[in-house]
Amino acid sequence: MQSSKLCHLCAGATIAASARLGDHVVVYPGATVADDCLVAGFTQLWPGVRLERGACLGPGVTIQPPDEADASTVSFGPNCRIGANATILRGVRVGEGAVVEPGSVVAQSVPPHAIVSGAPARITGYVDSRSAQQVLAWRGQAEVQETGAVVRLDVGDVTLHRLSLVHDPRGDLVFGEFARDIPFAVKRYFMVFNVPSEKVRGEHAHRVCHQFLICAKGGCAVVVDDGATRCEVFLDSPDLGLYLPPMTWGTQYKCSGDTLLCVFTSHYYDPADYIRDYAEFLALVHKSPNNAA
Amino acid sequence: MQSSKLCHLCAGATIAASARLGDHVVVYPGATVADDCLVAGFTQLWPGVRLERGACLGPGVTIQPPDEADASTVSFGPNCRIGANATILRGVRVGEGAVVEPGSVVAQSVPPHAIVSGAPARITGYVDSRSAQQVLAWRGQAEVQETGAVVRLDVGDVTLHRLSLVHDPRGDLVFGEFARDIPFAVKRYFMVFNVPSEKVRGEHAHRVCHQFLICAKGGCAVVVDDGATRCEVFLDSPDLGLYLPPMTWGTQYKCSGDTLLCVFTSHYYDPADYIRDYAEFLALVHKSPNNAA
Amino acid sequence: MQSSKLCHLCAGATIAASARLGDHVVVYPGATVADDCLVAGFTQLWPGVRLERGACLGPGVTIQPPDEADASTVSFGPNCRIGANATILRGVRVGEGAVVEPGSVVAQSVPPHAIVSGAPARITGYVDSRSAQQVLAWRGQAEVQETGAVVRLDVGDVTLHRLSLVHDPRGDLVFGEFARDIPFAVKRYFMVFNVPSEKVRGEHAHRVCHQFLICAKGGCAVVVDDGATRCEVFLDSPDLGLYLPPMTWGTQYKCSGDTLLCVFTSHYYDPADYIRDYAEFLALVHKSPNNAA
Amino acid sequence: MQSSKLCHLCAGATIAASARLGDHVVVYPGATVADDCLVAGFTQLWPGVRLERGACLGPGVTIQPPDEADASTVSFGPNCRIGANATILRGVRVGEGAVVEPGSVVAQSVPPHAIVSGAPARITGYVDSRSAQQVLAWRGQAEVQETGAVVRLDVGDVTLHRLSLVHDPRGDLVFGEFARDIPFAVKRYFMVFNVPSEKVRGEHAHRVCHQFLICAKGGCAVVVDDGATRCEVFLDSPDLGLYLPPMTWGTQYKCSGDTLLCVFTSHYYDPADYIRDYAEFLALVHKSPNNAA
Amino acid sequence: MQSSKLCHLCAGATIAASARLGDHVVVYPGATVADDCLVAGFTQLWPGVRLERGACLGPGVTIQPPDEADASTVSFGPNCRIGANATILRGVRVGEGAVVEPGSVVAQSVPPHAIVSGAPARITGYVDSRSAQQVLAWRGQAEVQETGAVVRLDVGDVTLHRLSLVHDPRGDLVFGEFARDIPFAVKRYFMVFNVPSEKVRGEHAHRVCHQFLICAKGGCAVVVDDGATRCEVFLDSPDLGLYLPPMTWGTQYKCSGDTLLCVFTSHYYDPADYIRDYAEFLALVHKSPNNAA
Amino acid sequence: MQSSKLCHLCAGATIAASARLGDHVVVYPGATVADDCLVAGFTQLWPGVRLERGACLGPGVTIQPPDEADASTVSFGPNCRIGANATILRGVRVGEGAVVEPGSVVAQSVPPHAIVSGAPARITGYVDSRSAQQVLAWRGQAEVQETGAVVRLDVGDVTLHRLSLVHDPRGDLVFGEFARDIPFAVKRYFMVFNVPSEKVRGEHAHRVCHQFLICAKGGCAVVVDDGATRCEVFLDSPDLGLYLPPMTWGTQYKCSGDTLLCVFTSHYYDPADYIRDYAEFLALVHKSPNNAA
Repeated sequence: MQSSKLCHLCAGATIAASARLGDHVVVYPGATVADDCLVAGFTQLWPGVRLERGACLGPGVTIQPPDEADASTVSFGPNCRIGANATILRGVRVGEGAVVEPGSVVAQSVPPHAIVSGAPARITGYVDSRSAQQVLAWRGQAEVQETGAVVRLDVGDVTLHRLSLVHDPRGDLVFGEFARDIPFAVKRYFMVFNVPSEKVRGEHAHRVCHQFLICAKGGCAVVVDDGATRCEVFLDSPDLGLYLPPMTWGTQYKCSGDTLLCVFTSHYYDPADYIRDYAEFLALVHKSPNNAA
Repeated sequence: MQSSKLCHLCAGATIAASARLGDHVVVYPGATVADDCLVAGFTQLWPGVRLERGACLGPGVTIQPPDEADASTVSFGPNCRIGANATILRGVRVGEGAVVEPGSVVAQSVPPHAIVSGAPARITGYVDSRSAQQVLAWRGQAEVQETGAVVRLDVGDVTLHRLSLVHDPRGDLVFGEFARDIPFAVKRYFMVFNVPSEKVRGEHAHRVCHQFLICAKGGCAVVVDDGATRCEVFLDSPDLGLYLPPMTWGTQYKCSGDTLLCVFTSHYYDPADYIRDYAEFLALVHKSPNNAA
Repeated sequence: MQSSKLCHLCAGATIAASARLGDHVVVYPGATVADDCLVAGFTQLWPGVRLERGACLGPGVTIQPPDEADASTVSFGPNCRIGANATILRGVRVGEGAVVEPGSVVAQSVPPHAIVSGAPARITGYVDSRSAQQVLAWRGQAEVQETGAVVRLDVGDVTLHRLSLVHDPRGDLVFGEFARDIPFAVKRYFMVFNVPSEKVRGEHAHRVCHQFLICAKGGCAVVVDDGATRCEVFLDSPDLGLYLPPMTWGTQYKCSGDTLLCVFTSHYYDPADYIRDYAEFLALVHKSPNNAA
Repeated sequence: MQSSKLCHLCAGATIAASARLGDHVVVYPGATVADDCLVAGFTQLWPGVRLERGACLGPGVTIQPPDEADASTVSFGPNCRIGANATILRGVRVGEGAVVEPGSVVAQSVPPHAIVSGAPARITGYVDSRSAQQVLAWRGQAEVQETGAVVRLDVGDVTLHRLSLVHDPRGDLVFGEFARDIPFAVKRYFMVFNVPSEKVRGEHAHRVCHQFLICAKGGCAVVVDDGATRCEVFLDSPDLGLYLPPMTWGTQYKCSGDTLLCVFTSHYYDPADYIRDYAEFLALVHKSPNNAA
Repeated sequence: MQSSKLCHLCAGATIAASARLGDHVVVYPGATVADDCLVAGFTQLWPGVRLERGACLGPGVTIQPPDEADASTVSFGPNCRIGANATILRGVRVGEGAVVEPGSVVAQSVPPHAIVSGAPARITGYVDSRSAQQVLAWRGQAEVQETGAVVRLDVGDVTLHRLSLVHDPRGDLVFGEFARDIPFAVKRYFMVFNVPSEKVRGEHAHRVCHQFLICAKGGCAVVVDDGATRCEVFLDSPDLGLYLPPMTWGTQYKCSGDTLLCVFTSHYYDPADYIRDYAEFLALVHKSPNNAA
Repeated sequence: MQSSKLCHLCAGATIAASARLGDHVVVYPGATVADDCLVAGFTQLWPGVRLERGACLGPGVTIQPPDEADASTVSFGPNCRIGANATILRGVRVGEGAVVEPGSVVAQSVPPHAIVSGAPARITGYVDSRSAQQVLAWRGQAEVQETGAVVRLDVGDVTLHRLSLVHDPRGDLVFGEFARDIPFAVKRYFMVFNVPSEKVRGEHAHRVCHQFLICAKGGCAVVVDDGATRCEVFLDSPDLGLYLPPMTWGTQYKCSGDTLLCVFTSHYYDPADYIRDYAEFLALVHKSPNNAA
């Protein structure tokens, strides 16, 4: 462990040898700092606070201490980065690889790989997601802009579809045929609306159910993740469809105020089909045969 | 035939004996006035104009004459009523039982039983359609407001469905399951949007295809007609669904500016399945066995 | 009576000697045309239609005839003027001195002295009301723009009041003190809102009750009438108050969409205090002692 | 002259031999009907009304008669066409070749070749102006969409210019250089804004002044006319410029609510440079040498 | 006094024995920390800063120091709580029992018991005020929703009133009668409007004047406080009235942009009737006989 | 050098003798603190951070450290002031005399003399700029409100012009004549639009080119600076023009969403004419003869 001057490291704290602590850091009993962590300075790590491998806290990060009314503490997932002078409220977990921008006030847990900013902090993007490039390149290819075009996004078997759009003075029309345009027979639809723009939806994968997403009004970003790669797609036209096969982790955010998201599914509703914990999802993906390579 | 003073009835006009003509009416050669018609006064019936049985023209109705550029004439369907001082442009047909309000300027044909008003004339309602009463009564009945409620509208086998609606701070949700909540398996969806509020859509029946209509955004009036009775339903909530079995004449109008109409169908698209002529529809309905009574 | 060629005047019609009828006019039995009336041409006066003294109908005025379902007829008050090609629906009375603009379609009765226009016709002003001039002149006088200013409008004892307005960064403030700024003690308030801009309100006088009107939001025109003179005031600022003493006929119209009209009264509600018929109001005014001069 | 039954043609009227009058037409003393005119029926032509060569009045056209307060009459320019049941108020002139749609109420004079509709009537287009085709074709040509492109519109020397547009995250930029991009040195600018969408502006030509028009905000239709041909250009982008050389008749209409029209001129303001009468413009154009062919 | 390592406590500071100071706290001469205070760490208490009994400062709270231009300091009222990493500007007083959320930047003094959040900090609520529960329960009781219902709020004699509301197609109407529906005779009205949504109004009590508040447009939260209990009422309908007897501390906030608050008072304006200091209000309340129990 | 307790001053740091350091300040090797600087406490000055003469950092200012990916550091210009608990991101330079408000998060460099606030920080004003006073006084003088008025702003030869504005029911009109109303002949125009309200434009001077600015739509603040004095003008009316002679530093900010800024220039575009560095501008100004006094 490397520490600078004017730190106060209490007995009962666990600090890995490879961790680096800057000036004026306080580590209370019961706090844990794992390998390769960095605490830049002027931070108190309260009892119960946990920095997992590679977590980085910029200078002046302030963590709300637990109190009698609420004993929940704070944890920082592997390789997350917390910006200078950020404030982290009690009960928050910052997910693996997530980024908190400097000066943010984080009141809700941050999903893995998400980038958050502001006070209160909102998700503004995902780390290493290839969204803009991927989709723009896709739109730039003349052959896939045509009706009926289907493009693989290199995230498992996720595909983006250009469906039929007919302009008509009496009203425009989009349509699709199941088991033809859409790669499964459909047993259920649902529609999501009145989504506050700062909210995140989805954040789960299905074990066997296929989904097909259409943003019929407004716009919405969908992050798809097969456990190895991520891609962000902005659905902003009613003739764009996004196919999520089973075992795809999906997240929606950046909804415009009037978003209407229309989803078709291959199965009736079954709560047992949902995987809501990202770590469980990663574990399942990595032992499944079609991820063997 | 009963006519008042100061009329000018030309040789070559056909005027039924039971027709009544008011003052200052001019009937040119080639015009036709059928039984029980009334022309209240100050109207010229140009060559080719045809009043079918029971048609009524109020005083001062002005019909645009055909000219060299456009020889199309005007016809008035059985029992239609044209209000005082209305203007009827060339090429217009006013459908059976339709009503034109006084002072209107009618530039497009008027569907059977429709009520039109204004300059240019727009549809404002349907004669003898039980909309308001029927639907309000339906809404007043506590048992059918519940999720899962299905109500017959006494128009063939048309039914109105209350689907599931879940309020959630991250966005509201509606959903339905095909072959369970919705009385058929679905092979195709289409969505209609950007509908100008003055436009009328639909105006056809299907021979074998079932349809299920949901107004996912905004609102829209649907008139369903089994050839014997009519009902108008205003779809204004995403958890209201309207089931149209085959051989139901459907019309949509009064769309709010942001209407998004979502339709599920039991069959893939087949142009041969459409009946677009109301008279043909009536003929088919009246010889079909389940309209025998 | 002076009539042009090609008229059809039926036995049983009553036509004053001083009436003038243009070309192609039809007067049916039971119609009445009083002294000094003018019918310019191409009009049918149905049974029961009544033109009172001095009424003028422009060319091509079309009156909807009574039918079996609705036998109500049409009457034209003294000295009213109906513009060319206007359409008058059954049941309408055009009030004394009112004006219907050319081409209008009149579906509702027109108050005395009102000017109506459009299809359907709406009130756009009042004949001979001194609104603009009076109020602008009033506003031009520096001494009455000051807080506390009270101006007589030369309509009975009606007064316009400039109340106190205080601008404050935490919210602006208007106020008034009863029996001081406002010339009576108050027993009741009422507020009117959600007024459709095409609607007319008021149209009555009170026998003993004093009223004080403030337009707290939006704007609203008030026509005050003491039976001899009229004035139109546009209340568009929350520090403008209008005092209506008893025996003042008041009408409100031209409300902006967000109008909130706040009224203070000197008496509790008493239906017997209302005079709702303009003729009765005129009769009462003209025999009352303070109108003796 | 050919007239139908039940007309009333007064002594003192002037009716050309080639004019045709339908049924129930009344022509008062002092009215004039020129060669090749048509009056379809049910119309009164009051004293002073003038139909110039080839004017056509559809059935039921109603003209407001002059009265004591206002003796101005109505005139119909050569080859204009007035739709069925239109109402024409006193004082109106319908310009040469103009069209009034059926049922319109015309309260203001109609410019030459304009098409008007509604109550009150507004300009909706110009007869035989090649707008849509011309401009769309222009836009379809890839080589003229480029910055610096200049296209002749086949109306005198009028040209349409694609100026420079630079997108920048700090604000977009358009610019032009006088005597380079814009074909004259500039001595004056003016900007027009707060244009009610129903108003028409311009309606004049200049003798020597060159003009260059840019619609910097919103959109605006400009009709340019060299006395022989007309073209309508819709300026809807700040990098579109329209050059009007001297002796070009220009009219602007269909302004969107937020239109800001920016005009550069080659001369300082000089009222003597304006030609405001279309007939005078035509006369000057047709004797000028560069219209000799 | 209990203090952690790495503090710098200057001579001339006053620190109570029961105060607790965390790591890296600096207390300059002339600063005061009263009994039961907590300073969690990384805070400088400048000369003149005063923590009253029980005040709690979370970790990283930064106080702006006084400078030559502005020597005003900062004080923290009894039992207030300042969240982690909050910034407190010079001149601010945080009132008794108030709460500053983590990460807030506080530029204005905070009223007693208020909760503030954001940068700059705005009031978002009041501690221990029973608003939602009380009012929702009140609305849930069918008998008090009826016109004329009056409900005590258990804050002195404050009552909430459901006044008369009449829906009418010509405009809706609310009204009330003084000394009948409203429990006093009225001598004065005032209206408040153009209230910025972030502003707080009121913050005073009256000695003898009764008030009756109606939110005629928009909505507004009113906190009423009798010195012992608090209740927050959201006035959002023009038929809801709130009666404040004398010696009630009232505060309004959370005004929607279009709020129009209408207040009736039992007395003419008298500045001597206002109590504007909360401590003075508490003192007067607690010695007054009707607070004896 | 004066420093308080608990500082950590590393070898290799450069700290002027007249600098003052508060408690808990850390200065790493390679950081520089010039004369008369103040660092109030709880701040780490990373390697490469530079405080120029008179820079003041309030308590708790947090500076983002350089990292492997981005080695750019932070510099604080002469006499700038950084508020308590502000966060300064890497790569930022705070210009001479600029002010960062407490609690701000500064992600972009701050121009000289600007005042920034918020997270992320935006410019809210300029230090010592006489804007409001100057312009209000100007507007208060009746003689300069008249059309044609020209007022010197005491910033070099910058002048503010009241141009001609004509109200017309067909659209309002503003205009100007070059070399008459506007003090140069014009060779080029440009228009700026779609300016995000948080963006700053301009920030340069011209060597020989004259400019004339008009805000044709919306509003925009322009700061003009001759190297000695500054003035802020808010252009919010299309008849206000601002003349910038050569060697005037100009900045635009606070654009309303719909701003359209129209600029006329005396020269064609020449990149060599731009001075984009404020220090270079100051140097040029101070050696030029007409700044000799």
